[in-house]
Amino acid sequence: MAAMVRNKQVLLKNYVDGFPKESDMEVSCDATISLELPKNESGVLLTKNLYLSCDPMMRNRMSESYLGAYMDSFALGSPLVGVGVSKVVDSTHPDFKKGDYVTGFVNWEEYSVVPNPQVTKIQHTDVPLSYYTGILGMAGMTAYVGFYEFCSAKKGEYFFVSAASGAIGQLVGQFAKRAGCYVVGSAGSKEKVDLLKNKFGFDEAFNYKEEQDLNATLKRYFPDGIDVYFDNVGGKMLDAVLPNMRVHGRIASCGMISQYNRLQKPEAVYNLSLVIFKRIKILGFTFYDFLHLYPKFYDLILPLIREGKIEYLEDIAEGLEKGPAAFVGLFSGRNVGKQVVAVARD
Amino acid sequence: MAAMVRNKQVLLKNYVDGFPKESDMEVSCDATISLELPKNESGVLLTKNLYLSCDPMMRNRMSESYLGAYMDSFALGSPLVGVGVSKVVDSTHPDFKKGDYVTGFVNWEEYSVVPNPQVTKIQHTDVPLSYYTGILGMAGMTAYVGFYEFCSAKKGEYFFVSAASGAIGQLVGQFAKRAGCYVVGSAGSKEKVDLLKNKFGFDEAFNYKEEQDLNATLKRYFPDGIDVYFDNVGGKMLDAVLPNMRVHGRIASCGMISQYNRLQKPEAVYNLSLVIFKRIKILGFTFYDFLHLYPKFYDLILPLIREGKIEYLEDIAEGLEKGPAAFVGLFSGRNVGKQVVAVARD
Repeated sequence: MAAMVRNKQVLLKNYVDGFPKESDMEVSCDATISLELPKNESGVLLTKNLYLSCDPMMRNRMSESYLGAYMDSFALGSPLVGVGVSKVVDSTHPDFKKGDYVTGFVNWEEYSVVPNPQVTKIQHTDVPLSYYTGILGMAGMTAYVGFYEFCSAKKGEYFFVSAASGAIGQLVGQFAKRAGCYVVGSAGSKEKVDLLKNKFGFDEAFNYKEEQDLNATLKRYFPDGIDVYFDNVGGKMLDAVLPNMRVHGRIASCGMISQYNRLQKPEAVYNLSLVIFKRIKILGFTFYDFLHLYPKFYDLILPLIREGKIEYLEDIAEGLEKGPAAFVGLFSGRNVGKQVVAVARD
Repeated sequence: MAAMVRNKQVLLKNYVDGFPKESDMEVSCDATISLELPKNESGVLLTKNLYLSCDPMMRNRMSESYLGAYMDSFALGSPLVGVGVSKVVDSTHPDFKKGDYVTGFVNWEEYSVVPNPQVTKIQHTDVPLSYYTGILGMAGMTAYVGFYEFCSAKKGEYFFVSAASGAIGQLVGQFAKRAGCYVVGSAGSKEKVDLLKNKFGFDEAFNYKEEQDLNATLKRYFPDGIDVYFDNVGGKMLDAVLPNMRVHGRIASCGMISQYNRLQKPEAVYNLSLVIFKRIKILGFTFYDFLHLYPKFYDLILPLIREGKIEYLEDIAEGLEKGPAAFVGLFSGRNVGKQVVAVARD
């Protein structure tokens, strides 16, 4: 039996009400773990966790309960759980061997014992492994499914995306540009607005924090109205979008980050009756329902990455102990690009 | 030239803010009209108006302006305009002759001069002519298009419709029953609830005015959730429906009568973020986009009417002078069934 090593973890200290704080989590060095699996237990992996994804949706699982719950809340005193990229250190599973890279749901800790089969083997290792927490993972698939299955965006259409420099938004905007749309994005700082226009190739972008009247702002950027709104935020922005939608417009909604911290008292939307006058579709979706499209998505995205034809920006926090701050930062928009926590580099 | 006759009219006296009142309209006997058209003006009809439809959407055109306007506001001092059934008294149009029955947009007055071609000839006169203001007109088509093009309702699914005894609701509920759904309707009185259960064949029905907590009410009637909500009212009911929707549910929205009198300050909807968790579609539509389906709709509905296989209830106010009260009554739910004004019987 191998010696035990320390296994640093990020634990949920208390259930969260409102905005999450770093102090809602605890970085603990109390746990230890053996770096060899007992041979009599089959179908199990021991992983060294390399990259952890910070996803807004994890906030919901930090509530003791939440409206429309589709996943269990995290357990108090246990590690957070999120999408990660890990290296197999030991395996009693026939499909995985030491040295394989895997991705899937993983605890926020240095090493994990992963029962079969919460993770899938990473096939393409010629691209940065951290990409599997974002552009090649949940965010990428969400952007892909949302854009290609729900937006029905045609050449020349007016396309708006919120949280546009985020993991999903930056990809959606680039998909829309590739499809020939006129693309405007909103973000929360001048730096992000510059990125949207100069790095990601958006036609226009604005800092929503500097706008007094979002309805008027959207009228300025879309004098002829919006055909497609890719909604990452919900709330006030969605309400301002509705009067600016064109007839037969589509609103694809994969996230409402503005609402996750106020699920007990969500923000009001007043302009919903416009969905009738304007014959609008509001389409809520998650990529979970479209896992069968992964191969199609990879056929599109991997060549774009390899040929440098798609931009992708990560914001990597170094070290598991930076995890709580990195996660909390999502909700103030501190991150610039996809927020990742690097637990180890290999 | 024929003698002039009195032409009673219902005029808009002032623009409406909030709930419409009878005093916002004026029944005027000041106008006169010749019952013969000048022969040199071609392509014109002179009609005697028989039945006028009271439609909630007319309320929007009584505002000086309204958000998402898709039709002009009515002119002050001019007659209201709505769907009607008329008899041709004189015609200089080759496609229409004296004695024909027509339907389409018509002024709220006894006789109208109708320029080509705001109306279409009624082909089937073996059914009550008033039906063309409802089951064979806008309401029928809205129910048909909404149900068959947007609801994707399957056998065994849980179906909820609001304003269920209204012109649209009573038909939608019957379509849903024919499709094998479990159907519950809401309405605003005990009498209507009884009608829903005993005349229209709904599985269940409730009086929303007697319920304190609509969310709890819906949970009681749909312990396993709602697959399809056919929304005629918007506002609070829509907000209560969202937490009760099942995953992959559909909300077809053709009207939000609860909101038409408060377009300056619409009611808030708080639970929209549930469209994501539950992957819900909200589909705003009007039958205008589906006029090509009229023949298909008539193929379905005419035999059902002739064979007595569909129930249809009208609330007919006798006389044009009853028009203002009949229209205003829509918004307090005074009418039981489709509200029609009979100007003349033939």
